[in-house]
Amino acid sequence: MSLDKPNQELRRELKDIASGLEQAASKVPSLTKGCQGEEVTTVLKLIAKLYEDADRLAALADEVKAGRIARAKAE
Amino acid sequence: MSLDKPNQELRRELKDIASGLEQAASKVPSLTKGCQGEEVTTVLKLIAKLYEDADRLAALADEVKAGRIARAKAE
Repeated sequence: MSLDKPNQELRRELKDIASGLEQAASKVPSLTKGCQGEEVTTVLKLIAKLYEDADRLAALADEVKAGRIARAKAE
Repeated sequence: MSLDKPNQELRRELKDIASGLEQAASKVPSLTKGCQGEEVTTVLKLIAKLYEDADRLAALADEVKAGRIARAKAE
């Protein structure tokens, strides 16, 4: 099924934010090398959360692709 | 306008991810205290990106509230 423009844009927006979060998550380890003890746990949770949120957004983008979520045309 | 359940859930999902990103962004400074030089720039960009993405998701949640983005009922 091909999407119309508003829905292509919505899907791209969601996928773009998702990939931005994955990029952010991938940068965190090198920026938090100085962390110790409990901070390390916080860092690991932060990274896991970013990847999880990226997955949630990718799932929403898939719903747009499948037509279950739809953006109306601008009026 | 009151939203039906699938759209309440969609709006909550988007707002929830957005607030998670704001929380993540707020944690970054204390975890990156050891950064120097160019790393500081990377950290600041990372934080700005997380807040920006949170804003984009909040805007999408507002579109759901306004009925411009809608999720169909499960079949």
